[in-house]
Amino acid sequence: MTGSEDRPTWKAVAVRATPYVRVDPETLRSNIAAMQHFCDSQGLALRPHIKTHKSIEIARLQLSEGAVGLSVATVGEAEVFADTVAEHGADVLIAYPVAASAERLGRLGRRVRTIVGVDSREGIGRAADAGVAVSIEVDSGLGRTGVPAEDARALAEYSRSLGVTVTGVFTFPGHGYGMRSARRDAASDEAAALSRACDGLRAAGITDPVASGGSTPTAAFVHGDVLTELRPGVYVFMDAVQLALGAATPEKVALTVRTTVISTAVPNQFVLDAGAKVLGMDRPGFVATHGLLPAYPGTRLARLWEHHAVVETPDGVDRPMLGEQVNVVPNHVCATVNLVDELFVGNEVWQVAARGHNA
Amino acid sequence: MTGSEDRPTWKAVAVRATPYVRVDPETLRSNIAAMQHFCDSQGLALRPHIKTHKSIEIARLQLSEGAVGLSVATVGEAEVFADTVAEHGADVLIAYPVAASAERLGRLGRRVRTIVGVDSREGIGRAADAGVAVSIEVDSGLGRTGVPAEDARALAEYSRSLGVTVTGVFTFPGHGYGMRSARRDAASDEAAALSRACDGLRAAGITDPVASGGSTPTAAFVHGDVLTELRPGVYVFMDAVQLALGAATPEKVALTVRTTVISTAVPNQFVLDAGAKVLGMDRPGFVATHGLLPAYPGTRLARLWEHHAVVETPDGVDRPMLGEQVNVVPNHVCATVNLVDELFVGNEVWQVAARGHNA
Repeated sequence: MTGSEDRPTWKAVAVRATPYVRVDPETLRSNIAAMQHFCDSQGLALRPHIKTHKSIEIARLQLSEGAVGLSVATVGEAEVFADTVAEHGADVLIAYPVAASAERLGRLGRRVRTIVGVDSREGIGRAADAGVAVSIEVDSGLGRTGVPAEDARALAEYSRSLGVTVTGVFTFPGHGYGMRSARRDAASDEAAALSRACDGLRAAGITDPVASGGSTPTAAFVHGDVLTELRPGVYVFMDAVQLALGAATPEKVALTVRTTVISTAVPNQFVLDAGAKVLGMDRPGFVATHGLLPAYPGTRLARLWEHHAVVETPDGVDRPMLGEQVNVVPNHVCATVNLVDELFVGNEVWQVAARGHNA
Repeated sequence: MTGSEDRPTWKAVAVRATPYVRVDPETLRSNIAAMQHFCDSQGLALRPHIKTHKSIEIARLQLSEGAVGLSVATVGEAEVFADTVAEHGADVLIAYPVAASAERLGRLGRRVRTIVGVDSREGIGRAADAGVAVSIEVDSGLGRTGVPAEDARALAEYSRSLGVTVTGVFTFPGHGYGMRSARRDAASDEAAALSRACDGLRAAGITDPVASGGSTPTAAFVHGDVLTELRPGVYVFMDAVQLALGAATPEKVALTVRTTVISTAVPNQFVLDAGAKVLGMDRPGFVATHGLLPAYPGTRLARLWEHHAVVETPDGVDRPMLGEQVNVVPNHVCATVNLVDELFVGNEVWQVAARGHNA
């Protein structure tokens, strides 16, 4: 224990410092094509939600493949994607009741055809001042935002009284994030709410309203006879929650976090250099881990700190060596992407252009 | 319901789009001064952990107030703060076993006096190649990284055999994040582990080893007769977890997230435009909420999505109006800061310079 000759060596060849986020371009493209094909086969327009990837390159792939427009979560996201959407002759839906000022919405509307989510007269008033179209959010069982379906008519009439274009109605069946029949039940709730709301819009004189719903876990159960449009987001990358829900299979996982094993000192566990600041802290009740290690089945990412993960390895289960690099499938990929500025996609680096654009 | 004269108006004057992160500069300065004063009174050096704020301006305040150096979580953070630390004639401790290459650590060491955390011979070998000093991490009960205290001696001897300077030992008493006696017990465990480890270092010929511990919740119970250095982080801002632990009082909370009420449609709840993408998803078992609303006592931030929070308001409890702006104290302020690029501090905007520097 004196010279350098018997020094243990660091196993991994550190090409790039870990942790970082890798995307497999083949799987990404395949996921985008498959969802477009599914929507085409159901007669549905696809309006993917970019909150998952926040990246211009991926939005271009989606629009080129046939998406009619984009869904975004915030005005800040819409501003980042405005030129890309306009280039493709598409439009953007801010798929929540928007708190932004009419002035800001108006500036956005002059750059790209804009539809803002509304669930109140206040919101419709600002859309009128901004000169943008609206889609009326209805609640289909999540109990977050959106009016009851039977109130859509009154909001549509109010919109028309102010000269505001109503494109249709939308809902987010977020209660489909659950086990057993939750996905199927939420898709039914979605269809029922949108159907009732569309009846109201037609009574208000709006012919052919858009009936927009959908999420990655409910897509497989979509009622194609009621909906006209789907807004999934996570499908481009998939994640451990989608695997747990049965909404994804392992070969569809396009994004992983590359990590290094930094400690194997304690038996039956090892420590990774990736924590909540890259994996995110999301863990729904039906998921027992903070992420999956496909190369090490039987392990469980049991504890997570800001920069560390402790992975439990029961007796008889393989574990990696100190210094080895290991891929982790995060629980909620939207949270992971929102924590990094760059995605490493094959040999390319794509910016997470709208990262942190919460406002 | 026809003209604009009876349109409900948006209540808030939107000076800046919400959500955004506000810091009260008076409270921040007071917290920094108070922790420095506390350490001075205990005869402890203060080496604050910058993972909480990741901001050059706040590091300067800490160093000017008397901090002996900074603690950082990653090499990437050390690189961002290197010049600031060097300007103050201080040094930087990477307070975890570091996975970075010797080449990268060497480049850092030529910019600023660098101490890297180690808990393996591999780590010590890279420190030797990099020409930087080490501090040996010992576990004091958290069970994450660090060797048992009795193994510190062997690592110290190994370091010396490679010509590596050992500054001392450090531990993170993270099991102090718990209720009842957890904070006091963890501080005792910390002192016991550091005391044993320092005995080992002295036996290895290292006189006056640094015994570095501490965290915001355990600071009040620190054993000043054993420790020589404290590394708290959260104390600059405080948060809802520290309030729950009794480690902070409301007047010490320096950081809040400014949000807007975007829906009051459902009775006994309202919806904010701030979700997990700005508040973070951390919620330890002993905390019943995803954040606190000081202006609305009795409410509970019960459900959190990426861009929304649903706040429950029991009967008889005040709730804000639609469009009103409301401050939220996040559960874990380190997570919140790592989600934004800017802090709004009084009339100034400070960059979160090391945001996302996980590698």
